[in-house]
Amino acid sequence: MNTVELMRLFMEPRSVALVGLTRATGIMGWNVLEHLLSYGFKGNLYPVNPAADEILGLKCYHSVKEIPGDIDLAVILTPRSIVPRLVKECTERGIKAITVVGQGFADSDADGKALQAEMVRIAREGGARIVGPNTFGTANAFINFNSAYVQMDMQKVPTGIICQTGLFFGGLPKFPILGKGIDIGNACDIDFSDGLEYFEDDPEVKVILLYIEGVRDGRRFLDVAGRVAKKKPIIALKSGQSEEAAQAAQSHSGSLAGRDEVYDAAFRQCGVIRVNSAEEFDDLSKAFLHLPLMKGRGVGIITNTGGGGIMATDACTRHNLDLAKLSPESSRKLDAIAPPWQDFENPADIWPPSMISGHPLPEVIRTTAETFLADDNIHGVIMIMPGFPLQYAPILFDPVVLDIKFEKPAVIWLYGTDVEGLASWLERTGKILYYPTMDRALNVLSKLNQYYEYLNRDDDR
Amino acid sequence: MNTVELMRLFMEPRSVALVGLTRATGIMGWNVLEHLLSYGFKGNLYPVNPAADEILGLKCYHSVKEIPGDIDLAVILTPRSIVPRLVKECTERGIKAITVVGQGFADSDADGKALQAEMVRIAREGGARIVGPNTFGTANAFINFNSAYVQMDMQKVPTGIICQTGLFFGGLPKFPILGKGIDIGNACDIDFSDGLEYFEDDPEVKVILLYIEGVRDGRRFLDVAGRVAKKKPIIALKSGQSEEAAQAAQSHSGSLAGRDEVYDAAFRQCGVIRVNSAEEFDDLSKAFLHLPLMKGRGVGIITNTGGGGIMATDACTRHNLDLAKLSPESSRKLDAIAPPWQDFENPADIWPPSMISGHPLPEVIRTTAETFLADDNIHGVIMIMPGFPLQYAPILFDPVVLDIKFEKPAVIWLYGTDVEGLASWLERTGKILYYPTMDRALNVLSKLNQYYEYLNRDDDR
Repeated sequence: MNTVELMRLFMEPRSVALVGLTRATGIMGWNVLEHLLSYGFKGNLYPVNPAADEILGLKCYHSVKEIPGDIDLAVILTPRSIVPRLVKECTERGIKAITVVGQGFADSDADGKALQAEMVRIAREGGARIVGPNTFGTANAFINFNSAYVQMDMQKVPTGIICQTGLFFGGLPKFPILGKGIDIGNACDIDFSDGLEYFEDDPEVKVILLYIEGVRDGRRFLDVAGRVAKKKPIIALKSGQSEEAAQAAQSHSGSLAGRDEVYDAAFRQCGVIRVNSAEEFDDLSKAFLHLPLMKGRGVGIITNTGGGGIMATDACTRHNLDLAKLSPESSRKLDAIAPPWQDFENPADIWPPSMISGHPLPEVIRTTAETFLADDNIHGVIMIMPGFPLQYAPILFDPVVLDIKFEKPAVIWLYGTDVEGLASWLERTGKILYYPTMDRALNVLSKLNQYYEYLNRDDDR
Repeated sequence: MNTVELMRLFMEPRSVALVGLTRATGIMGWNVLEHLLSYGFKGNLYPVNPAADEILGLKCYHSVKEIPGDIDLAVILTPRSIVPRLVKECTERGIKAITVVGQGFADSDADGKALQAEMVRIAREGGARIVGPNTFGTANAFINFNSAYVQMDMQKVPTGIICQTGLFFGGLPKFPILGKGIDIGNACDIDFSDGLEYFEDDPEVKVILLYIEGVRDGRRFLDVAGRVAKKKPIIALKSGQSEEAAQAAQSHSGSLAGRDEVYDAAFRQCGVIRVNSAEEFDDLSKAFLHLPLMKGRGVGIITNTGGGGIMATDACTRHNLDLAKLSPESSRKLDAIAPPWQDFENPADIWPPSMISGHPLPEVIRTTAETFLADDNIHGVIMIMPGFPLQYAPILFDPVVLDIKFEKPAVIWLYGTDVEGLASWLERTGKILYYPTMDRALNVLSKLNQYYEYLNRDDDR
């Protein structure tokens, strides 16, 4: 069985044994079966609990060995001490994919480390592979499957995450991260590279996210990630950067955080886009799914406020982007609608052409956007606008989003106390994405450029 | 008339002449009078327009000279060419405070620079002072006054801003910045120091924000800001850091951006807290109004997710904060509720004490929070929790916010797709403030510490 076939047992199981399933239900019941039934998972579910004959209306088996038929995946939900014995029973039953959920293994004391080593040995001998321990397991919104013992919201978004924390199984405020998820936990066996190979040719996943505390087999990771990154963007958050944080990672997933600069160099080499924060998963998933790549570093700034234009120029510097110098043709087009005394350039302060020269604001926005998007020196555009009341959205922006071709990425930052309506309206057009801060908007453009540069770099140099 | 008396004419006018008021009303009418009437401003309003006898039901004067009674403030709303003449009429009428709204002065060409110099000369000779040009003017939510020609939302929050852009007159998404505002625009006359002196002893303003493109009289600014910062926090966003941005600032407000490192050093010397982005105005206003200062750099991290704890530890490093080492007594208290194999330290992963040891989650949260807030090594706390459904808020957090004394700042980052309800609930307790990213939460703690250090530094060294 190759890696992808194996990973399909974890990610697309048709039959799942829930070993050590609790009889508790409801709030604080942490009952995986209850959650799976609520999601509408269509595969066969086999509760296993030696002290129960039925759980939630399903026949309960006293051991995996009693279960009839095929079992793609066993999820072991018991305290740590009996896990090696249960892994053995699973391998004896012919199960190839085992998720071990519990904590207290390499994330803890010497006993836990020994238990983890023992269960890995048993699995290897029995021809099985393990996800975990210390994990929510695997999730696949496309088949309504999620082995987390916490109830999760899932949406069929084309993103896949491989992580060492359940944190990202819950999604982030503005964007549901979880189309498919693999929480490798302590990563005693299944590691980032296995997950990457599964996502590599998966048509349901277009953006891959990694939350890394430590990678064991660095050489394989470099090979696999470098290959996969040529096909889909890989965005990685590597934590444990400081000494204290590395110590915390050791307690959390038993990971050796490694030297941060080594990871930095490795990510650069294999085209993995490194981020520092959870919200960047949010921001970049959205961007890579919906925006074209940025083919250079030149930014055009279209702003309703001169101050905002200057702040955005500063932010370009922070994000390794350049304020684009307009072509003479663009300058001529913009000068034609500005007051004679205005240097209507980049950043383009659209207020004087409207307030002083009397051109309707929609016309000024449209002319500026069209000019910028057509200028070869500009590779991406940021707009800075107030949160206009929603009823003005079509008046102001229809001429832009309906008539202009967007072959370059465009982002917008809205200011004021009521921006959500216009933000949603713009995003529904699929042309301009909203970000809640200028820095986040420009970070997105920067990363769209970074990935473009990776795809187009000369590997022979 | 001293500076504060003068500034009161701009900020607390009892009578205002609107010179060059348009007859247009409604959307795109930009009618200041219409806005002032809608806010419920109670002072006397005198429209001035040589071509109208009445605007919006008020008698319209053909010149300021025709207006009977006192005039505290004249707001000149005309195109640039006739401004010097109107400033002259105002001074001849005895008006001491004049706001010049229009653009096209030092922010533009040689003609504009000459016009600006001329109107300043006329004002000086006539004993008047000018706010602007290129400005929204002044705003004071406490008397429902705002001279912006754009309709603004105002709230009586105890913050005052002095800025060179109208951007911040509109407020930010999560926090209405504008209790009082002075848009000094091109700052041809009234400058940051004048505004600071007005806010210095103003009981309605507790936090001062500055958006700076350039400061003219650096020596006075250092003196005044250093003195005021001992009384109230001053938060400054200085834009125009790169060469391109400095060029844009020159076009925007005619400001000389100056060398960025000079500003950096000056802010440090006079205790001004420098920020880089609009959202930090939002974040820090809220923090300085509601949280105690942070008396050291030791952070305690209380987290529902081990991964989140590691990420927060990394973020501490980015924000010049330390992961606090717990006192032996604190360690003992935490160990008592953790599984034997868990190193329940800082960051404190509250999941195993609850899931493995079976202590109710509210009890674990409460014990950890109480222990952390009592530990001398911890000077501020960040919590990392999922966006629990609102009905659990009192169960989980009442024991914390009702029973524990918060003499140290506490912030929270919530993860998951539905966090707003819990965030608002927590903020209403006044004990724990929510921030939408870990970095923003820790930046707040860092700045609360920076201001504490300024207030307590030894000036004799």
